[in-house]
Amino acid sequence: MTYLNKDINEIELLSKEDYPQKGKKPSKIREDLPKLIKELGIKDGDSISFHHHLRNGDRVLVHVMKAIQKAGIKDITLVASSIFPSMAEIVELIEDGTITNVVSSYISGPVGEAISKGKLKGKVIMQSHGGRARAILADEVVINYAFIAAPSCDMKGNISGTNGPNSCGALGYAMSDAVKGQKTIAVTDYIAGYPNFPADITEDYIDYIYKVDSIGEKTGIVSGTTMITKDPVGLKIAQDTLKAMIATGLVQKGLSFQTGAGGISLAVADYLRDYMKENEIVGSFASGGITGYLVDMLEEGLFEALFDVQCFDLKAVESIGKNANHLKMSGSLYGNPDVSCVVDNLDIVILGATEIDTDFNVNVTTGSHGMLMGGSGGHQDTAFGAKVSIIVSKLFSSRIPFIKDRVDVITTPGNTVDILVTERGISINPLRTDLIEKFKAAKVDIIDIHDLKKYAESVMGVPKKIEKTDRIVGLSQSRTGDILDYIYEVKH
Amino acid sequence: MTYLNKDINEIELLSKEDYPQKGKKPSKIREDLPKLIKELGIKDGDSISFHHHLRNGDRVLVHVMKAIQKAGIKDITLVASSIFPSMAEIVELIEDGTITNVVSSYISGPVGEAISKGKLKGKVIMQSHGGRARAILADEVVINYAFIAAPSCDMKGNISGTNGPNSCGALGYAMSDAVKGQKTIAVTDYIAGYPNFPADITEDYIDYIYKVDSIGEKTGIVSGTTMITKDPVGLKIAQDTLKAMIATGLVQKGLSFQTGAGGISLAVADYLRDYMKENEIVGSFASGGITGYLVDMLEEGLFEALFDVQCFDLKAVESIGKNANHLKMSGSLYGNPDVSCVVDNLDIVILGATEIDTDFNVNVTTGSHGMLMGGSGGHQDTAFGAKVSIIVSKLFSSRIPFIKDRVDVITTPGNTVDILVTERGISINPLRTDLIEKFKAAKVDIIDIHDLKKYAESVMGVPKKIEKTDRIVGLSQSRTGDILDYIYEVKH
Repeated sequence: MTYLNKDINEIELLSKEDYPQKGKKPSKIREDLPKLIKELGIKDGDSISFHHHLRNGDRVLVHVMKAIQKAGIKDITLVASSIFPSMAEIVELIEDGTITNVVSSYISGPVGEAISKGKLKGKVIMQSHGGRARAILADEVVINYAFIAAPSCDMKGNISGTNGPNSCGALGYAMSDAVKGQKTIAVTDYIAGYPNFPADITEDYIDYIYKVDSIGEKTGIVSGTTMITKDPVGLKIAQDTLKAMIATGLVQKGLSFQTGAGGISLAVADYLRDYMKENEIVGSFASGGITGYLVDMLEEGLFEALFDVQCFDLKAVESIGKNANHLKMSGSLYGNPDVSCVVDNLDIVILGATEIDTDFNVNVTTGSHGMLMGGSGGHQDTAFGAKVSIIVSKLFSSRIPFIKDRVDVITTPGNTVDILVTERGISINPLRTDLIEKFKAAKVDIIDIHDLKKYAESVMGVPKKIEKTDRIVGLSQSRTGDILDYIYEVKH
Repeated sequence: MTYLNKDINEIELLSKEDYPQKGKKPSKIREDLPKLIKELGIKDGDSISFHHHLRNGDRVLVHVMKAIQKAGIKDITLVASSIFPSMAEIVELIEDGTITNVVSSYISGPVGEAISKGKLKGKVIMQSHGGRARAILADEVVINYAFIAAPSCDMKGNISGTNGPNSCGALGYAMSDAVKGQKTIAVTDYIAGYPNFPADITEDYIDYIYKVDSIGEKTGIVSGTTMITKDPVGLKIAQDTLKAMIATGLVQKGLSFQTGAGGISLAVADYLRDYMKENEIVGSFASGGITGYLVDMLEEGLFEALFDVQCFDLKAVESIGKNANHLKMSGSLYGNPDVSCVVDNLDIVILGATEIDTDFNVNVTTGSHGMLMGGSGGHQDTAFGAKVSIIVSKLFSSRIPFIKDRVDVITTPGNTVDILVTERGISINPLRTDLIEKFKAAKVDIIDIHDLKKYAESVMGVPKKIEKTDRIVGLSQSRTGDILDYIYEVKH
């Protein structure tokens, strides 16, 4: 309160000579990355952030980081909301010390393997999507430079994910970076006329615009499984999941719903769609990373709105550009536990898992060989926020049982995971006595998770323990900031 | 960087017993204001903010402040983006010490008079709209409690200015308050279904929702002059202004334009509209407080987009709810000098004035009797940002000459005011030699501002000096934070 607390008689007037002069504003546009890196003053030890809305099609992260490597800058903390197989070249930067630490919500492919093999000199911190927004907005993760891949950007910095040849729709995870990045650089291959709208990030948050030939390929957005499973076992699980959902009593007018993009999860959405149509149920909203399946449900009037933090396919991208009920949301609005967020309004979330243990802890961070190959994304956030969280999975994956005594890495704490649906039965977390009662009343059978585990082991045997060294290479962080688990180096 | 800088072997895991528990989230909705004031813990010396989008129709500011008075709380700093005649009851709160300081961008009516008569124990700080956003976002003005009049709000706090019986359209000035208010309270007379969209302020920024019977009357938005003048002298000035605009060379494809809501300013927009139609000119955007006149121009294709920080009439409110090219903007995006803002992209702004001096300094803060009866609003911001700022005014107002040796209070520094258009001729600020050349080339006559002043005084005489005491009651602040002028107590 600079002037409020001062004696008014001691406040001096600005002299006429010192009035700010109006005149030309310097251009924000740059076309030479090495020069820009110099102008920005990026130096050893800085932290640099990227968002992943172009997913496996993103070419911005590698392009910028390689230029930083070329400039001889070391010891960077890479704050990348996700890292995909297409970013394999980053391994070299980890090996040569350009990158020392990584903060991310999802890492798959060679970069995850390199980290698991102990190549990172510092550590990796794996956060949920909501936890990332929290950490950035609370200044716990400081971003010196935020590079924001921009499908379109005007000459002043108004960024839209809707326009441009590589439109990717929502830009939810980039928003905290735009707000908190000490310097923010839009990286774009499409300079739009002023004003560029609808703007996801407005010019008041952008310091520089770096014009490139290509930010990537939007077709790379569709990576991993974003199709309904055709496997009959998976379809049975999906059918049983719908039964479980109905047993909770939540599938009624006003239902709010989220589902992952895995094959079984999407099959659940498909069965739910038929059920809602037949029973004339209109839900309130669906949220999350959005696929074409949810777009169809919106267009059919089964939901009043979609809350979209990232588009999982091109149908979602198209929809968000034209349907006023297909809403964009920031990562913070999605799942930041420090604030009122959308996940807290969810009735049911359907989630996949790599493995689960008898305490219902879920691992989606490491794979069966103990290598980093995923991360929470919104898993932790939605499991916590939703009234009922449901894990759908087959009991085996590549002959390895799905249920363990203790998961390799706790991504999502078991006390927030309510129901497990497998091909051999439905287990309910014993903490949810209310749900157990409801399932009894609805005459839906349930089975103890220990019995499911025993059955699986009777078929495939007890899986071998993953061999790890005693070196901790990273941390699995809770959305509220505490550390849930260590990530150990894999023996190789 | 909490965990990044720590030895990984010394980081402890959160124990299972301490995992956050999922469960019911407490309701944000409150219906008893005295109880809410207690729950919030509002105390002597706190600062409380309000926005003014319902303008003279707002009933939230007085309602809340009277309850604070009733609670016996003293020494409040009232951070109100504007104060209108309908808020006369605030005078009593100034007199009894409930309110000690006022920070605002526009004050008209009894509250302004009371402050000018020295009734405020502390001081008033008059800011521009952009300067207000800057001061709040830079933590220079701290807001302990932001009360946000919400035309509609869902039970989680998603606020929309578009929906509800008292929809007022844009909520641009409330945004910095929502972001920075230490506690934020949506005050609404319309609880919408979840999710309420399009949301101007999302639930992640809202702590409480206070449900009232009425937030005011949207018809009160139209206050002051928001009609084209019918006065032939005013119309001549408007015609000459269009000539001046054309002489600048800026009235061409891509024109960006803003005009105040005064009768002459609106007449300029009307003449401009005809000219753009005749010459098939399509501008890029118009900005500011938006009136139906600019909506018409948007709908006729004369501008590609409108940037709207507040709706000045109900036609603008209607348009912003349905036209995707009618964009909402925050006060910061509008005019915050710390960031890239829309005013910096303006070609021409047309502004009114209460008085101007021979250095082109403008006063829109005090009236002819020296009483507070206005304020910068966007005046300072647009005069600075626009390539050419034009003041339109008659040479006399109620027989008092318009041009002075020194204005009573400097609201907008003369070095940012470029052209003055009066019924006796056009003056150009001598700093703008470029414009003087252009007007010569275009054969548009100009006249020295001293000669205009002499003429006016030859007709009406030199105006009497306003009688003031030597007590400073307030400050006219520049948008960048310095103090431009003192506001003195008026002798009464």
